[in-house]
Amino acid sequence: MLIKEKVEQAKKLLAEFDVDCWITFVRESAINGDPTLVYLAPGHVTWHSAFVVARDGRTRAIVGRYDVQAIADLGVWDDVTGFVTGIREPLAALLRELDPRTIAVNYSESSEIADGITHGMYLTLMRILGELSMADRVVSAEPIVSALRERKTAAEIDVMREAIRHTQEIYALVGGFIRPGVTESEIAAFVHAEIARRGLGHAWEEATCPAVFTGPGGAEAHYAPGARQVERGHVLNMDFGVKVGAYVSDMQRTFYVLAEGETAAPAEVRKGFDTIVAAIEAAKRAMRPGVEGRAIDAVARGLIVGAGYEEYPHALGHQVGRFAHDGTALLGPTWEKYADKPLKKLQPGMVFTLEPRLTVAGRGICTVEEMVVVTETGCEWLSDPQRELVLIR
Amino acid sequence: MLIKEKVEQAKKLLAEFDVDCWITFVRESAINGDPTLVYLAPGHVTWHSAFVVARDGRTRAIVGRYDVQAIADLGVWDDVTGFVTGIREPLAALLRELDPRTIAVNYSESSEIADGITHGMYLTLMRILGELSMADRVVSAEPIVSALRERKTAAEIDVMREAIRHTQEIYALVGGFIRPGVTESEIAAFVHAEIARRGLGHAWEEATCPAVFTGPGGAEAHYAPGARQVERGHVLNMDFGVKVGAYVSDMQRTFYVLAEGETAAPAEVRKGFDTIVAAIEAAKRAMRPGVEGRAIDAVARGLIVGAGYEEYPHALGHQVGRFAHDGTALLGPTWEKYADKPLKKLQPGMVFTLEPRLTVAGRGICTVEEMVVVTETGCEWLSDPQRELVLIR
Repeated sequence: MLIKEKVEQAKKLLAEFDVDCWITFVRESAINGDPTLVYLAPGHVTWHSAFVVARDGRTRAIVGRYDVQAIADLGVWDDVTGFVTGIREPLAALLRELDPRTIAVNYSESSEIADGITHGMYLTLMRILGELSMADRVVSAEPIVSALRERKTAAEIDVMREAIRHTQEIYALVGGFIRPGVTESEIAAFVHAEIARRGLGHAWEEATCPAVFTGPGGAEAHYAPGARQVERGHVLNMDFGVKVGAYVSDMQRTFYVLAEGETAAPAEVRKGFDTIVAAIEAAKRAMRPGVEGRAIDAVARGLIVGAGYEEYPHALGHQVGRFAHDGTALLGPTWEKYADKPLKKLQPGMVFTLEPRLTVAGRGICTVEEMVVVTETGCEWLSDPQRELVLIR
Repeated sequence: MLIKEKVEQAKKLLAEFDVDCWITFVRESAINGDPTLVYLAPGHVTWHSAFVVARDGRTRAIVGRYDVQAIADLGVWDDVTGFVTGIREPLAALLRELDPRTIAVNYSESSEIADGITHGMYLTLMRILGELSMADRVVSAEPIVSALRERKTAAEIDVMREAIRHTQEIYALVGGFIRPGVTESEIAAFVHAEIARRGLGHAWEEATCPAVFTGPGGAEAHYAPGARQVERGHVLNMDFGVKVGAYVSDMQRTFYVLAEGETAAPAEVRKGFDTIVAAIEAAKRAMRPGVEGRAIDAVARGLIVGAGYEEYPHALGHQVGRFAHDGTALLGPTWEKYADKPLKKLQPGMVFTLEPRLTVAGRGICTVEEMVVVTETGCEWLSDPQRELVLIR
């Protein structure tokens, strides 16, 4: 079971990153949760709660009285302590007993996935640690939390393969639905109905999952599918993913709507599409453990700019998992907003998208998004890559 | 429309609390959002985003390029600035222009609802403010954020009345379903089916919404409905709420299962139930603007202890809104975990539960949960209060 597997993984990560004690400190998680809590607890917690993994291999949870039984029933936490009036005393007692040299806490400027503790909760924790003269022992738990999410187990990858299979099947079906005259909204409705029929969830907010862009004009101007109709000569692209269990997919495909008399896409559309495919292939070939994400982005970005296109205004690819944007390591340029994510090295088990983009003037946007997993020696497709434009007759 | 209404309310709150500038600073809100964001934006944001309300009455949003159009289309934000590589420059430029004396940020030790900023995001903001020599101008936005949630508009109360109506109707139906031999799980399944049939959501996690407890034994020991069967002589209580639109209800009711030959509950059960009802009535009578929440809790707690029962191990009541546990002000004792919530004064528009609890030895738990709204002069029922035990024959 996932929580048991992940808590076992966490124990080993403490040794790997030389941390004595890792605390996930959270309250009212339905309101303001920590994205790491799902790996530690079976549902939401109400009161101040501390989930503590220590170098001694013992796992302790301190939670409000009414949350005790649910946590204890997991069988993952060696000690579960409940309280009625406040967490300060039981938490201080535990920390005094452990006397850790380092205390890893879930905060990070660069990684939202590792930035689970709110500032108010951080202040509360520091107050308790201050009383114990332990405030200077706090470090960021970013390496632990990132590895826990990013190094996917075979079971996690299997669920993601299932999400990808559904996504590809729905893309095949919607290819038969797209025709001149249908609107972006109608295409989105077709996809929503198919997702519902299969009993799946959406990978992100339904209003933009799928995103559907047909024809020329910036994607920024029509963020959600609207009344714009598919026309002959349009490049059309879609972006969506589904949720299977707790895991999601995230894929894009590009279509071309043949003009009267055409039997193939015009040369400039083919060139644009082929450039995207070549960029994805080249990036994938460069992926292996130990390489920094920015190097992979540079491969695809360089290839697209070299072919005469403007560079895409985003990263080449992000990790996928429980969210469409998951993990810390990123295949992106070293822009301010990406902080040190592009400097992180690829590791086996990381699942990435590869999604370069370019505009074909007067036609629309070419962008394909594949999914790959980093292996011990390189990188494998999780999706069946799109190698040809889908032609709409 | 709610966002417009709430941003207008926020402008006035800046004057009321003498704050020059209020910043909601958030990124990847699908992963680690701020509970205040729903009052400011139509959906999730991806990149570092700043929603700034200033004393000059102008509203400004700085968001990632792909989020610009969705925010601009709201018509609530006077200026919407997009960025590609990072927020530091546009945010610094805005702050330099405003030069506010005070900058309110969403953090709070005592109120989870006002504790929206993660510690990593706080560090990023403080770095930017440090470069501007403005770091010492930061204050907690807790008073603004709390008032925004707590002072409910007539439109918000109307939606909550609808949620309460459904809850009461479902309680009436389930009263006809409960009988000796049915299990807690079967009772829960009946409620889930009725919630689904009405197209409503659950007020909190489905696994414990409803909670169903039949007979003697601590609620802590069986947190979710299980295989325990209803027996004659049991006190049975249930706790659930539904979601209508974005707002929820939260109500409890107590049932008594008549023993063979009984036509009324035994004296000790009636005394327990009547004590709960009396505690709720007394607390409600004491509620009016300006009174601290702890004083209301003390009324009910004192009455129950005075009648010879153990005091309930929780607060008398919490606010309800978008979450079952909402708002900052609390009708609770001054326990550590409640921080200064019980010291907050009641204000018109606050919606509270009243939910004392006591155990009738060998029978079960009596606990009724009503919902009330604070008015200009006192307090009104939102629920139709339970005055009699529901007898199951």
